[in-house]
Amino acid sequence: MERVSLLTDVRRTNDEVAAENQAIFRSMATLTVNLMSAPGAGKTTVLESTILRLGSHYRLAVIEGDLQTSIDSERILALGVPAHQITTGTVCHLDARMVRKAIAEFPLERVDVLFIENVGNLVCPAEFNLGEDLRVMVYSVVEGVEKPKKYPLMFHKADVVLLNKIDLIPYAGVELEELRKNVIEVNPRAAIFPISCRTGEGLEMWTQFLTVRIGAHKATAAESV
Amino acid sequence: MERVSLLTDVRRTNDEVAAENQAIFRSMATLTVNLMSAPGAGKTTVLESTILRLGSHYRLAVIEGDLQTSIDSERILALGVPAHQITTGTVCHLDARMVRKAIAEFPLERVDVLFIENVGNLVCPAEFNLGEDLRVMVYSVVEGVEKPKKYPLMFHKADVVLLNKIDLIPYAGVELEELRKNVIEVNPRAAIFPISCRTGEGLEMWTQFLTVRIGAHKATAAESV
Repeated sequence: MERVSLLTDVRRTNDEVAAENQAIFRSMATLTVNLMSAPGAGKTTVLESTILRLGSHYRLAVIEGDLQTSIDSERILALGVPAHQITTGTVCHLDARMVRKAIAEFPLERVDVLFIENVGNLVCPAEFNLGEDLRVMVYSVVEGVEKPKKYPLMFHKADVVLLNKIDLIPYAGVELEELRKNVIEVNPRAAIFPISCRTGEGLEMWTQFLTVRIGAHKATAAESV
Repeated sequence: MERVSLLTDVRRTNDEVAAENQAIFRSMATLTVNLMSAPGAGKTTVLESTILRLGSHYRLAVIEGDLQTSIDSERILALGVPAHQITTGTVCHLDARMVRKAIAEFPLERVDVLFIENVGNLVCPAEFNLGEDLRVMVYSVVEGVEKPKKYPLMFHKADVVLLNKIDLIPYAGVELEELRKNVIEVNPRAAIFPISCRTGEGLEMWTQFLTVRIGAHKATAAESV
């Protein structure tokens, strides 16, 4: 009981820092994307695939969040995209303060899209606003069709749900339409894209969506100057 | 910062309750198994497969932990095994107090093995001792080979690591031996069983291991009477 009320206090302060982050991102016309998922759903691979498709059109940067290791930021750096690794130790999510520190590492005024890859966790990251413009959830279809009901918060908060690893559907015994129905039940407003980073299926739709959002963001930023 | 110190306080009290739970389990000669994994790694399916193999030899009971829904406890009840569902709301792990309340639902003196299926989360459940005898981690090989390095705590604390869904290895591009090596690096003392609940591969080895542990536990309990 005590823990819940304490968390609420911590969260309020996090929201204040997140609002400041959001103001910084706006002033730089940088679209920020918070990528969340359970461990192993394929966030980094989605990032790599997205970078390969958008990297020649936009200036990208990545903040990586992990408990330990810099494996993920090294994968991004290998693609020639600036990446900063946050290692959280035992903390199971990124928070707005960690992101604030990390953005000091980038010349944000020269970044069109900043991807923030959260710690792999289907619960806690959804509770911490980072100041992002877009919440993108990556869900591995191999995890089964009933998870939207069992972990509703993250599905509910997502602007985009990428249903990843659809190439494994024939072997995993998962019904894509049932999964999609369960996602919509929890969040009818989310954009849902079934994708496979292995075969490339669905990635065109996802990156087109992102391109439209980048354009709209730049237009809004230009108007507000 | 504040959050960390507060968590430490909560954890100390949790350890005290866990020690009491452990004493209760011992006095009833009940072996308790804490099943942990990321969401969708297959804990409930492992439980079903284990129940089908051991259910006619031992008296089993299950505590299910989920944020929402009683989907999992219904699956267990359908096999004729007593099951009690804990729904944690937004709390991302079970703690010793929740388990204490739940065990009031069972006549423990008539339970040989109590399985406690934790909330699907690769981070937080590892920090909360429930008073269990055996920590069993289920890991879906589809989540990739590098997770033991990135989420070391749960791998480190596990007595048993079940590498599940090995039937998907040919389609998921995962090297089982590399994964096993990474697990051993973080935890050289864990018993590792590659399994597939779909094909049944490896389940005999896992349930034999569990049978030996049940026997040893009963013998120890009988000696201490």
